[in-house]
Amino acid sequence: MAQNTMTPAELTKTLKVLKTAKEAKLTKVAVAGGSGYAGQELIRLLAQHPNVNLTAIGTNSHDGDKFSDINPGFAGMVDNICTDLNIEALAEGNDLIFLALPHGSAARLLSSSVLQKSKVIDLSGDFRLKNAAKHLLANGKPFDAAYGLPELNRHDIAHASLVANPGCYATAAILSLAPLVKAGLIVENSVIIDGKSGVSGAGRAPSLHIQFAECNETMAAYQLPHHRHTPEIEQTLSAYAADDVITTFAAHLVPMNRGILLTSYATMKTTVSKEEVTEAYLNSYKNEPFVRLWHNRGSMPETRWVKGSNFCDIGFALDQRSNRIVTVAAIDNLIKGAAGQAIQNMNIILGIDETTGIAQIPSFL
Amino acid sequence: MAQNTMTPAELTKTLKVLKTAKEAKLTKVAVAGGSGYAGQELIRLLAQHPNVNLTAIGTNSHDGDKFSDINPGFAGMVDNICTDLNIEALAEGNDLIFLALPHGSAARLLSSSVLQKSKVIDLSGDFRLKNAAKHLLANGKPFDAAYGLPELNRHDIAHASLVANPGCYATAAILSLAPLVKAGLIVENSVIIDGKSGVSGAGRAPSLHIQFAECNETMAAYQLPHHRHTPEIEQTLSAYAADDVITTFAAHLVPMNRGILLTSYATMKTTVSKEEVTEAYLNSYKNEPFVRLWHNRGSMPETRWVKGSNFCDIGFALDQRSNRIVTVAAIDNLIKGAAGQAIQNMNIILGIDETTGIAQIPSFL
Amino acid sequence: MAQNTMTPAELTKTLKVLKTAKEAKLTKVAVAGGSGYAGQELIRLLAQHPNVNLTAIGTNSHDGDKFSDINPGFAGMVDNICTDLNIEALAEGNDLIFLALPHGSAARLLSSSVLQKSKVIDLSGDFRLKNAAKHLLANGKPFDAAYGLPELNRHDIAHASLVANPGCYATAAILSLAPLVKAGLIVENSVIIDGKSGVSGAGRAPSLHIQFAECNETMAAYQLPHHRHTPEIEQTLSAYAADDVITTFAAHLVPMNRGILLTSYATMKTTVSKEEVTEAYLNSYKNEPFVRLWHNRGSMPETRWVKGSNFCDIGFALDQRSNRIVTVAAIDNLIKGAAGQAIQNMNIILGIDETTGIAQIPSFL
Amino acid sequence: MAQNTMTPAELTKTLKVLKTAKEAKLTKVAVAGGSGYAGQELIRLLAQHPNVNLTAIGTNSHDGDKFSDINPGFAGMVDNICTDLNIEALAEGNDLIFLALPHGSAARLLSSSVLQKSKVIDLSGDFRLKNAAKHLLANGKPFDAAYGLPELNRHDIAHASLVANPGCYATAAILSLAPLVKAGLIVENSVIIDGKSGVSGAGRAPSLHIQFAECNETMAAYQLPHHRHTPEIEQTLSAYAADDVITTFAAHLVPMNRGILLTSYATMKTTVSKEEVTEAYLNSYKNEPFVRLWHNRGSMPETRWVKGSNFCDIGFALDQRSNRIVTVAAIDNLIKGAAGQAIQNMNIILGIDETTGIAQIPSFL
Repeated sequence: MAQNTMTPAELTKTLKVLKTAKEAKLTKVAVAGGSGYAGQELIRLLAQHPNVNLTAIGTNSHDGDKFSDINPGFAGMVDNICTDLNIEALAEGNDLIFLALPHGSAARLLSSSVLQKSKVIDLSGDFRLKNAAKHLLANGKPFDAAYGLPELNRHDIAHASLVANPGCYATAAILSLAPLVKAGLIVENSVIIDGKSGVSGAGRAPSLHIQFAECNETMAAYQLPHHRHTPEIEQTLSAYAADDVITTFAAHLVPMNRGILLTSYATMKTTVSKEEVTEAYLNSYKNEPFVRLWHNRGSMPETRWVKGSNFCDIGFALDQRSNRIVTVAAIDNLIKGAAGQAIQNMNIILGIDETTGIAQIPSFL
Repeated sequence: MAQNTMTPAELTKTLKVLKTAKEAKLTKVAVAGGSGYAGQELIRLLAQHPNVNLTAIGTNSHDGDKFSDINPGFAGMVDNICTDLNIEALAEGNDLIFLALPHGSAARLLSSSVLQKSKVIDLSGDFRLKNAAKHLLANGKPFDAAYGLPELNRHDIAHASLVANPGCYATAAILSLAPLVKAGLIVENSVIIDGKSGVSGAGRAPSLHIQFAECNETMAAYQLPHHRHTPEIEQTLSAYAADDVITTFAAHLVPMNRGILLTSYATMKTTVSKEEVTEAYLNSYKNEPFVRLWHNRGSMPETRWVKGSNFCDIGFALDQRSNRIVTVAAIDNLIKGAAGQAIQNMNIILGIDETTGIAQIPSFL
Repeated sequence: MAQNTMTPAELTKTLKVLKTAKEAKLTKVAVAGGSGYAGQELIRLLAQHPNVNLTAIGTNSHDGDKFSDINPGFAGMVDNICTDLNIEALAEGNDLIFLALPHGSAARLLSSSVLQKSKVIDLSGDFRLKNAAKHLLANGKPFDAAYGLPELNRHDIAHASLVANPGCYATAAILSLAPLVKAGLIVENSVIIDGKSGVSGAGRAPSLHIQFAECNETMAAYQLPHHRHTPEIEQTLSAYAADDVITTFAAHLVPMNRGILLTSYATMKTTVSKEEVTEAYLNSYKNEPFVRLWHNRGSMPETRWVKGSNFCDIGFALDQRSNRIVTVAAIDNLIKGAAGQAIQNMNIILGIDETTGIAQIPSFL
Repeated sequence: MAQNTMTPAELTKTLKVLKTAKEAKLTKVAVAGGSGYAGQELIRLLAQHPNVNLTAIGTNSHDGDKFSDINPGFAGMVDNICTDLNIEALAEGNDLIFLALPHGSAARLLSSSVLQKSKVIDLSGDFRLKNAAKHLLANGKPFDAAYGLPELNRHDIAHASLVANPGCYATAAILSLAPLVKAGLIVENSVIIDGKSGVSGAGRAPSLHIQFAECNETMAAYQLPHHRHTPEIEQTLSAYAADDVITTFAAHLVPMNRGILLTSYATMKTTVSKEEVTEAYLNSYKNEPFVRLWHNRGSMPETRWVKGSNFCDIGFALDQRSNRIVTVAAIDNLIKGAAGQAIQNMNIILGIDETTGIAQIPSFL
């Protein structure tokens, strides 16, 4: 068809336009902290993100090393030379920087000077709590950290200069419970959260309790009865509730690399039907690209169905005898629970399709 | 010292007496169902039990096979030739038989004729529920199955001709919750049980969902909101409570061979101290050889600390904000949750030291 | 810059041209056999391949089912309705079909009529051996199956109507040994191959020996002293050797989902230096996108460094005392050992960049 | 029967004699180094050994701690208070001491003064090599360490004051190859050993490479082409050979807690039959309580069949085409490869039944 052909001159010009446009569009980003698991996942995903130019990897102890020498899986794919951990310098040369540092480091290193130069997405717990953030001043001004859970807070994220990426357990807990709280279905102080995590959730710093033979073939409960993500969960859910949401939260370590399965229990305010609960979830998530509801399946979410992906799968069951609801949420703790969600936040800030670079199909094994 | 020596003639006579006495004392036992995991564990433990002569292994499909040809780990240790699954014949020649058969088989195969010939310990769920047992008649008489949880029911077990060995989850749930119910500390209908089991708990019959690559590196919730052990738990706990105990029970599959970790949540009737709870547990278990309390440790029970042993380790934490208690129980599902407890019941029936043959130190890895 | 802008009319026309061109370019493909692990990986990778339209998934037992109902991880991503296993019909409507069927099925189902309608890439062992292929006639003509190892056989693959995708062990063995054979460095009948595979290599059909508790926490050797991939390896290597290559090959099952680590041993014809061996490998692979050499590292390949990717990593060590070379190759058995390599073959047939759709960075955990 | 009864007076006397005899017979032993995996296994087995009184556990960093506080699995079973690591003091109060210390420590700490006070069984590599031992003088006299592989060296062990307990890989390698060397069946310099070990073999000192997420779901080769056990294997086998035995030995790490599977390859001197090989093995092992031959089975040894036991299972296959033999040996690296064998050596020294305290049936999962 005539209108769908181009002359050679037209084609040459077109390709030139497209190439220039693409280069101009690439966002320059840096990752501070590339040696932990979340940092490595960030780098893996960013290196293949079509809108991003990963310019720098700042590390504590690998200044001058080739990233793929430290992590041989990246050979030929991410051969960047690591720099030291100079946040100011990273901010200077980039549009956006990710902080994938141990808890406490970001609060110590971040300044308003950095935030004036570059957008910042922080994967630590340092800026997640409102009260905590208020105490962190730079030049007399508090940081305006947006809580980086896109499904609840997309608008704030889009305009924030600092995003506090949620905790992994908190992501699964809030996504599975918020629709019930919003719809006024559950008794606020009846929430019990039983979280189970793969061992990568415990970080990468060598420690006896996460050595192979210490945590293979065993299960353990830890931080009872209040995991450190508890305040983050309660703060976020309470914003949608009539009363303060109070939770009991037991975390468990399970012998596998990746994945969080989170089972929550709550008392219903009144007797409700499966349909009413389904409607509450659909109201929240029917247009969400990364939340999948299991109300039409005969089974419950499993971590393998989300492995390597940015999905959060949510199922529920009603216990008529006790008038309770049981919810089950599954995420990949390193993707939707960390690096993937951080990139989702970046996509929102950049104003591009929110799924760009993080639409991988789960790898199931 | 003169009084502590013997003449050669005295010694010869003594040794002959001891050998005869020992042979006379050996209880003849059989295992019906030696191909499942619980059956194999029974055989492993019985073969090394000092008071037992394991005379027969009855199987469905291995009649005439050497047991150690089917399970090469037993080579040179248990080389018995398997027989077919004739319960009458097994009862005929033995003092006590263990039934380690799929659920439903025992109820179908057992008769009062069998029970007249031999004591029976059944590891299935067929006789655990009082109502269920009432319906199982043989010659017009209901079987008088004793519920085989020694810590609660030692007296009945000692005199029973049929013992219903508890379910694995039920063992962990009842042992960790009964002292709280007995002491009137928890609200009866507030109990939430979150159980996590290794894959051997799902049995040995080939099935897609328990293949290695289907359950390795993943977690799944199943039988929500009422695992089939729920009635067994509620029936047993309710016997000690003012009101009926009603529980919500979610079971989970975890990628490891052995072990159950069971986290329970309940609302306290009044505000109680750590000391009061500790006292409730000590009242129940201070003389129990197989229950270990963790009230003096800074951590919670883990399945590795009970692996390969008949122990049930129990810890707890109080959540002051919600006035809840969280308990954590760990057992080896195949030992205290099946074969070990069955032998504990046998020891009670035989009137010998309850720990005989099942006092192994946990193997920790 | 003036030349790099377009008028709105130009832009509209350009976008229309590009969209039409893209649709015209999409290759229509089908997968026959979507329920096994290799089939699922194929579908996962094809669904995200930019040049492919996955039109059909043919199965034995899921005709009419939504693919994502059987495999919930694909929900929202691959919601195709499965068809039955009619190879003729699949060939009719597609440019290329992949056969991911149990060994023996492809040879039974494939006809020259199918091959006239569509290109075929077969992932089974049915057409890998030359002698075997000769016996498979359709209308009196043998199938001309090209051996689908791109690094050795790119030209034949490009023009074949039937490609026999190599075995997983064979891929690792041939890629690590062929350069040594080609360079005449190793004694032909001295090759010993010790292969170790994750459990997904044993397929997905339920069977006792691949149940979780049967292969977790244990290692086993099988098919000694000649795994069924042996003839495939010997046939391929012998084509480059002065004498017939004869190997001893022991395969082992290791408790992990994915990955093959293959250690080979061979006697050197003469004393050679590390540099000479390196040169032999570089001669073969310096321009290969999916082979990574480890001669400059202080360690050996590990399966985690290739997990989820199409890479084959190869390392070696020289044993001066015995004048032997030890090589270590790592692949993901489901990607470079199956689905990824099949897509690499498809890319060659389509004449597009060989890495299209299979350039994932390894996921390392 | 009259002759088999005793009067009450006879019985009282007899029981008193037996009790006194038993107490007199108990050997006092100590373990130096109770925090590593081998040390913990030693303590677990010794605590249940009928002829032993475990009087002391010497540690580097837990002086004054209750052993069961450090390792809660031992609660109620081994509640000894740990002492510091004073070898002299341990030797003073005991008949026999086990050294389960890091490599290098025993050679540094041991003196002839210690050896005059107590028998010593050392689990490290310090005294395994003859040349190494010669250099270790105390008061001008070399230690006369016996190589503690009972199946080859029972006589020397019985009379030694110092026993060098073999390495785990070396135990599996020597037991599977020595009969072939002794019978003159294999070419001395043709031996290739491919060893695969569970992660407990890498010790317990925290290190990045043995953290859970670093070695779960992956396999790695290490110490190529000569694992540090190579000289130990060659020294021992060469003693039975016409020529020096030279081996190539590649070790591999596999994601499981316990177990070594060792596959070896050697060229036969002449063509031999399966029967001749079987005879060579039977000549060596037909009366050995801890070696099980698999010549009559259709499969090969697996580590699960020896798990938790002191067995070494050995199988073989003949490769007629290359005139090679492939042998497969399986041991539990912590039992027959460390603690169990150490106790076997102790039993020999004590002159009691060699299987005492280490006759556990494998636990298979």
